[in-house]
Amino acid sequence: MSSTVDRLTDLFTTRVREIVPPLFGAAGEPVRPLISLAYGLADPALFPRAELIAAATQVLAYEAAESLNYAMSYPGLTDQIVARLQAEGVDAQPEQVLVGYGSGQILALLPEIFVEPGDIVIIEGPSFLGAVKRFVQSGARLITVPVDEHGMNVTVLADVLRRLAAEGRRPKFIYTIPTFHNPTGVTLSLDRRRQLVALAAEYGVPVVEDDAYIDLRFSGEPLPSLAALDQAGWVIRVGTYSKILAPGLRIGWVHARREIIDRLLMVKAEGTTGPFITRVVARYCADGRLERHITELRRHYAAKCHVMVSAVQRHFPAEAHFVRPEGGFFIWVTLPSGVSAQTLLTAARSRGAEFLPGSACFAEPGQGDNAIRLAFSFQSSERIEQGIAAIGAAFGDL
Amino acid sequence: MSSTVDRLTDLFTTRVREIVPPLFGAAGEPVRPLISLAYGLADPALFPRAELIAAATQVLAYEAAESLNYAMSYPGLTDQIVARLQAEGVDAQPEQVLVGYGSGQILALLPEIFVEPGDIVIIEGPSFLGAVKRFVQSGARLITVPVDEHGMNVTVLADVLRRLAAEGRRPKFIYTIPTFHNPTGVTLSLDRRRQLVALAAEYGVPVVEDDAYIDLRFSGEPLPSLAALDQAGWVIRVGTYSKILAPGLRIGWVHARREIIDRLLMVKAEGTTGPFITRVVARYCADGRLERHITELRRHYAAKCHVMVSAVQRHFPAEAHFVRPEGGFFIWVTLPSGVSAQTLLTAARSRGAEFLPGSACFAEPGQGDNAIRLAFSFQSSERIEQGIAAIGAAFGDL
Repeated sequence: MSSTVDRLTDLFTTRVREIVPPLFGAAGEPVRPLISLAYGLADPALFPRAELIAAATQVLAYEAAESLNYAMSYPGLTDQIVARLQAEGVDAQPEQVLVGYGSGQILALLPEIFVEPGDIVIIEGPSFLGAVKRFVQSGARLITVPVDEHGMNVTVLADVLRRLAAEGRRPKFIYTIPTFHNPTGVTLSLDRRRQLVALAAEYGVPVVEDDAYIDLRFSGEPLPSLAALDQAGWVIRVGTYSKILAPGLRIGWVHARREIIDRLLMVKAEGTTGPFITRVVARYCADGRLERHITELRRHYAAKCHVMVSAVQRHFPAEAHFVRPEGGFFIWVTLPSGVSAQTLLTAARSRGAEFLPGSACFAEPGQGDNAIRLAFSFQSSERIEQGIAAIGAAFGDL
Repeated sequence: MSSTVDRLTDLFTTRVREIVPPLFGAAGEPVRPLISLAYGLADPALFPRAELIAAATQVLAYEAAESLNYAMSYPGLTDQIVARLQAEGVDAQPEQVLVGYGSGQILALLPEIFVEPGDIVIIEGPSFLGAVKRFVQSGARLITVPVDEHGMNVTVLADVLRRLAAEGRRPKFIYTIPTFHNPTGVTLSLDRRRQLVALAAEYGVPVVEDDAYIDLRFSGEPLPSLAALDQAGWVIRVGTYSKILAPGLRIGWVHARREIIDRLLMVKAEGTTGPFITRVVARYCADGRLERHITELRRHYAAKCHVMVSAVQRHFPAEAHFVRPEGGFFIWVTLPSGVSAQTLLTAARSRGAEFLPGSACFAEPGQGDNAIRLAFSFQSSERIEQGIAAIGAAFGDL
């Protein structure tokens, strides 16, 4: 007679018979004495604790009946998201917005409504693999378009779309992080933004615009989001409060055509996002507090970016190359010819620091070993300086 | 050329091409001047606002770095759940527990790991349709086993399982609410509990034990949960903080074999449940506060149950029949022969009160029109008395 486990395993759906490790929620600062520059965590020194205490207290004191019972997401938070989108030039409407438990949830639900096994999804290389792995889990066949210092190479994208159309194939969506890209830190140029939005409409392919970092600009002129340039409704704009308020509150959102929002709600198992947490976030953000906080974050992260850039220039070999970011959380360093990111990582860990090897940002194995991602978001300026010095010294150990 | 909507609709997966309305999150007290006894909302008068303010304040003041950054669910909450299960006699382990955004999320994810279109799921009739509709959405073929005053009729269940086994068919799971059942308020007897657990092991069919109301016992002796009786690991125990703390916090959980937990985490799009909200709930529940609160809830809901029972006895026709519940949120009244719940509802609404017609608790159309569900959980005792009097008067209008 077979074991209980064997008998149980017979019952699982095909999709979950083989276990795949979770992709969101597992990220966290590893518990070891390394100076980790690997992960894009928020700087805990910038959490607005007192104001969040005030917001939670007010919600519980004055809105307990609405926030603690069974109820939908707080519509006032959706209104705030709509207002910010409108200020950015997007013709946004409340019924086109869905609030989720982090933008990671939205990015994991999108393949559930678009991707059947074998369908094509176009991604950037490198990209945010946390999202890309969920596309793969849904059975997507990935096509990677390279990113250069001006963002996704839309000429290559146009070639890919033309070739696929000639074969009668239509991708399910294009996933892009156009502003202060993760991991490269680069920003898609205005010209390429216009081309990308035009290609989406021409070929009828949605563009998933993951703009997690858009509010964190340190220098240069703001560019319109893809959603703001989009007239035909092919852009699915994903946003989050994780980078501008606090990741642990787990609040993200998506703005898209109503047809897409309705279907995302169908596959969002728990229904709308909880009334308590959405009211706390909305209370905090009201009365200009969020915008004032963002101003402070910009100044603070700009300073830490400057510390890291300066340290890299002093401690890394001259042949190490990077594009100075105008915002976001990351610097992407292309290593001198012949230096392996994995080998460098081992040496750096021995010296007490770590980074994300570039290979962790490519869907295809064997790519990205000539580059590393450095996050300046989490560590203090002092630890950034120490960490970059340690990695710099590790080059000498190779 | 086809419209954008048509071109977009081509891209959706089969599962979401036709829109199905959301099933969780939409419930809420309707905004109209009726006395609604229809929904099992919590009593807002019992929300522990001051203690929740203290818990949220402490989390934000002392655990901001852990609760506001990217992180997993708070393990301390899992430990509390494990301790409560162990006190109940379940041999629980932390790695067998997954915390979700409400037990509704867990109940919606279970079919994603078990049900392929055409698979059989066994439910109770009547049952909690919020969950049952998600099973249907995954493509389940339902088989309904009747509920009487001692809970699910396990003799009928045994016949069903035997017949299916003879056909070479094995159901994916059995969904039951054994304690203070929704909607009938009845409790599965100890004898039937033992038979149910034995049948699960014999036929290798998981039992999903939804014990949302188990802590709210007013009278009678506590019975062991199915999980506590289960030696072979076929019981999937689902629990929630919605009935014993506050639904709006959206915290539920599941205890099951590790193989099931791992797969639920795969289909839980957002990963583990947020570190902030899980820490707030754990802080509130610590130091015996949850158990003291439950003691207060029991007394309070028992009193309101008594008010409703007494009012029904005075205002309803003598031929209306119900089983006095020993706990939970609901009374299920079988109407006098010839009285339609739908017709009574129309008359009751004219008189300013409403209930849930029994047909809303059966998966098959045409059933349950001879019964109604009355919730004593939400309204005050005064409004319960008024509402039952109005419904009682409505009988006279038929």
